[in-house]
Amino acid sequence: MSTNSSTLSDSTIAILGGTGPQGQGLALRFARAGVPVALGSRDGERAKAIAAELNAKLSAFPESCFITGVDNHAAVEAAPRVVMLAVPYAGHDDTLQSIKAALAGKVLVDLVVPLAQGNPRAVAMPKEGSATEAAQALLGSEVKVVGALHNVSAHTLNALHESINCDILACGDDVESTDEVVDLVERLGVSAYNCGPALNARCIEAITPMLIRLNISKKVPFSHAGIRIWAPGTHAA
Amino acid sequence: MSTNSSTLSDSTIAILGGTGPQGQGLALRFARAGVPVALGSRDGERAKAIAAELNAKLSAFPESCFITGVDNHAAVEAAPRVVMLAVPYAGHDDTLQSIKAALAGKVLVDLVVPLAQGNPRAVAMPKEGSATEAAQALLGSEVKVVGALHNVSAHTLNALHESINCDILACGDDVESTDEVVDLVERLGVSAYNCGPALNARCIEAITPMLIRLNISKKVPFSHAGIRIWAPGTHAA
Repeated sequence: MSTNSSTLSDSTIAILGGTGPQGQGLALRFARAGVPVALGSRDGERAKAIAAELNAKLSAFPESCFITGVDNHAAVEAAPRVVMLAVPYAGHDDTLQSIKAALAGKVLVDLVVPLAQGNPRAVAMPKEGSATEAAQALLGSEVKVVGALHNVSAHTLNALHESINCDILACGDDVESTDEVVDLVERLGVSAYNCGPALNARCIEAITPMLIRLNISKKVPFSHAGIRIWAPGTHAA
Repeated sequence: MSTNSSTLSDSTIAILGGTGPQGQGLALRFARAGVPVALGSRDGERAKAIAAELNAKLSAFPESCFITGVDNHAAVEAAPRVVMLAVPYAGHDDTLQSIKAALAGKVLVDLVVPLAQGNPRAVAMPKEGSATEAAQALLGSEVKVVGALHNVSAHTLNALHESINCDILACGDDVESTDEVVDLVERLGVSAYNCGPALNARCIEAITPMLIRLNISKKVPFSHAGIRIWAPGTHAA
């Protein structure tokens, strides 16, 4: 761990719903990349216990920063700029409502995919069109919402011995905040792209259930697939 | 050309709007892969002229099948099973209406992306949700509609010296027809995937304007990008 790893530095990011598989994997990846993480959960004690487990895993990577487990509110307070939301869709709006005031002036990175109830191979989009658009509507203009990191599997994030196998598509109505998130995500060693306005989350979020469908299909010889932007003349290894 | 290349065999496919860049590229690729093509246009004489140009290009590939240029109606008649629609979105519904009766019992492969008027970086989806769903609603249950081939650039299709740089995502409400189109498309040397019901065309079609946005962005060092499904543990060359 770096020398200042046990304090929350200016670059700390919050990951809410951080005790789920996606949140844990992201916390590991960002901490290993040198980004201090405030891992948030409704249950701060549970977040603290999970964070201890994750920090133990990171002991093999001495350059890692520290993961601090706290409740969601403390996590938002600890993050001066970037708060990531990785809760299940059922908790999306309630979680945002509960932290709305503390988010003013910050960037909310929304990872949530509105999977259909009981069918992870389909989306059931909210009336705003996507989770990202719903978050922006709920939070108002004082919070810049960026949709990103929807299509990378929790399995891949947690497999620290492997590189992340996909690109990251980001979108948001504030160009600068979206570019900032693209730069942050690229610290994980992936290619990330600003794919335009929040409206495009209707497409980006919907890629996830298509990947889930393929991953569980017997016709496809892989699981945990991601998506990549692929340029002409480039060939797979 | 194969010995029976100048007659329309049982495996002939029709490509409507075949004189556009996408249609021409597809005709070249399928004919080179051994699939006879009936290239359709509203103007049969123009289709005939374009087909002659394309057949000249294919003379370098002696195993190619023949491309026959005819009007859209004759193209549909010539194709016993698969008709591809590659017209601009403005002509989508009118073209389908004009050939509806002749399509009964066939598979309509819809390539059309409802790009927004004057803004190729955005979609303007029809009220049915996507072009594929609109086609299925217009044609009724006697025609099986499969959305596919939306995300491969015309440039790539026409660059016969290069392999196609992306995967093909297909969707449709009839599983067998969608699988049949997947198999047909894989004759082009690409990976194609049955991505589920026609509803998923809302996502697949919307990928195209995101790719266009990236391709024209100064921040991205490529153009004519496609999309790939990427499995863990696979690394780019």
